[in-house]
Amino acid sequence: MDATIGDISSPGRVAEPGEDIGLDELALATRNHGLPLEALRYDLTPAGLHYVLVHYDIPAAEADGWRLTVGGRVRNALTLDLAGLHSLPSVTRRVTMECAGNGRARLVPRPVSQPWLVEAVGTAEWTGVPLRVLLAEAQVTAEAVEAVFTGADHGVERGVEQDYRRSLPLPVALGDDPEVIVAYEMNGLPLPPQHGFPLRLVVPGWYGMAQVKWLRDITLTDTPFTGFQQAVAYRLRQSRDEAGEPVERIAPRALMIPPGFPDFMSRARVVRPGEIRLEGRAWSGRAPVTAVEVSTDGGDSWTRAALDPSGGHDWAWRHWQTSWTATAGSHVLSVRATDAQGHTQPLDQPWNRGGFANNLVQRVPVLCVESG
Amino acid sequence: MDATIGDISSPGRVAEPGEDIGLDELALATRNHGLPLEALRYDLTPAGLHYVLVHYDIPAAEADGWRLTVGGRVRNALTLDLAGLHSLPSVTRRVTMECAGNGRARLVPRPVSQPWLVEAVGTAEWTGVPLRVLLAEAQVTAEAVEAVFTGADHGVERGVEQDYRRSLPLPVALGDDPEVIVAYEMNGLPLPPQHGFPLRLVVPGWYGMAQVKWLRDITLTDTPFTGFQQAVAYRLRQSRDEAGEPVERIAPRALMIPPGFPDFMSRARVVRPGEIRLEGRAWSGRAPVTAVEVSTDGGDSWTRAALDPSGGHDWAWRHWQTSWTATAGSHVLSVRATDAQGHTQPLDQPWNRGGFANNLVQRVPVLCVESG
Repeated sequence: MDATIGDISSPGRVAEPGEDIGLDELALATRNHGLPLEALRYDLTPAGLHYVLVHYDIPAAEADGWRLTVGGRVRNALTLDLAGLHSLPSVTRRVTMECAGNGRARLVPRPVSQPWLVEAVGTAEWTGVPLRVLLAEAQVTAEAVEAVFTGADHGVERGVEQDYRRSLPLPVALGDDPEVIVAYEMNGLPLPPQHGFPLRLVVPGWYGMAQVKWLRDITLTDTPFTGFQQAVAYRLRQSRDEAGEPVERIAPRALMIPPGFPDFMSRARVVRPGEIRLEGRAWSGRAPVTAVEVSTDGGDSWTRAALDPSGGHDWAWRHWQTSWTATAGSHVLSVRATDAQGHTQPLDQPWNRGGFANNLVQRVPVLCVESG
Repeated sequence: MDATIGDISSPGRVAEPGEDIGLDELALATRNHGLPLEALRYDLTPAGLHYVLVHYDIPAAEADGWRLTVGGRVRNALTLDLAGLHSLPSVTRRVTMECAGNGRARLVPRPVSQPWLVEAVGTAEWTGVPLRVLLAEAQVTAEAVEAVFTGADHGVERGVEQDYRRSLPLPVALGDDPEVIVAYEMNGLPLPPQHGFPLRLVVPGWYGMAQVKWLRDITLTDTPFTGFQQAVAYRLRQSRDEAGEPVERIAPRALMIPPGFPDFMSRARVVRPGEIRLEGRAWSGRAPVTAVEVSTDGGDSWTRAALDPSGGHDWAWRHWQTSWTATAGSHVLSVRATDAQGHTQPLDQPWNRGGFANNLVQRVPVLCVESG
């Protein structure tokens, strides 16, 4: 029988009990990467430290000849080159992005996919044209209900050959808070290849799957989009056969800069006895973070940390800090965020078959020993 | 009994038969990262795509107040700030760096450490002060035999608390081809944090362990350095108790840009029938690459690829290409480099307990199917 794509592309699955990380998961982990947690120290994440997830390959994109088309249910279809986009009004927004699969590798049972532990996050300033400006120019017609975004990355997923493609409901696409951006700069420089050069979508508050990279087309549709990344992937399901709810906005999370210094292999932390500053970042894509609490006894008791103001960056993480008096011995540090809608982080894993939107609290094992 | 560093820091080990990747190896893989192989297309690797291995944490380095000291067996000990370094003569060199552990995760049995598959490589242009200029200024005395380099990154490894520290024999430190550089720029910009901001050593032709990042001290010694990273780690050993040979220069390797497009999870490649350009890069830290050969039948037969000239970049990878007529079915593509000293890449794994300097040929499984 002739070979087919099905021979190299399997259905989604959940690991067997006791099944460790396989070479396929490792191959994703060695090419994608998270934020080394000490890089939570930077307000703006340098490009090479910001988390990256690429479904297929980074396309060989050239600025010359790149075109963004806007079509479908519009009266004035657009074809824009980069100079054309640069001539339109632009905004710069500080946005925290997080992969919907962050924390997946610690779930039991483990959904088999990109095996993030907890580090799939980053914050950058993105500059570009508000999507609502482009859509006004294109004159969206009354029948339109969604905007579908197509990237230049092409591959196969669970047997389906595809360009990476996602949609947004029209009210989200036209919104002004959060305001969706067609971005051409990250932290004041042209987008790096792995972050979507030359154009990407930035949807503040939404998980990473909405932030379509290498953006080349926007099509307005009069029916909801049912492509693979919308209807098959990125759904919250307990069993394989249910439709599931869509993955959309980022659940609240706080992360701590692991204090002290690490062991190379175990990544466990070593601190000296005495007062230690604990600090990190907290964010939610649903509502402002209202509280950050820290536990130094493995989650039995919690105390409030000081939370910095947002500084007008409503869709970016906020710095928090507190202090802890370390005593000799082993400790487990944790932190959790709560937002203005009352969402908080659970101590028991929120589980679904894709391992999405899991905001289980971080645990940082620390050993406190005297010097030498 | 009181807790000690030994409780969180284990001896080096080799995985048991059938033991898959553990959470400790995964924690390294999610924070460090390799070159996504399609990025072999760039002559110069953008910073965020260049491989990164950080033993401990990325230090919170500030340009203001950073000092590089040069002392030990010198007549004129130096303390330089960044302005002082910038005032000295500078050079820019294109250099390919590779982690000594590249390919480790495919070895059987597998040394347990950072689990690279094959992607721990990158090429950049590094600008800085030739080390020999600094050492001339410091007036190295006749007793000196090595220069010891200390970075600001601090941690524990196999029970030993340490700053990252490595040495070079004095003839290497003073050499002019390759010329060792104290670098402050990567691809024309200040070093990114993960690549050693504000200063790092660049030793063309040597594996990554020699390229000390966050460089803060150079000490000339009258005896060979016997610190952890020199005498314990980075040795070629078949058994635990032998001294082993030191890991030094990069063995020849060629890599191919995987053709076609990938499956998300298996990373297997899909191509269409017909003529396909195969291309990639080849390098050796020992001598110029003299031949690149490609196999499209799993290593049974080999044909010569065209190798671009070095363009004067003697310590950087060279582009190679050839063409292949793909036919329907499954194929395994491979490529191997040979250098002017006659070193080539083996088809059987070169094994040692650290998984170092392993230049086993790459295998790229490809499925060729008609469109649709």
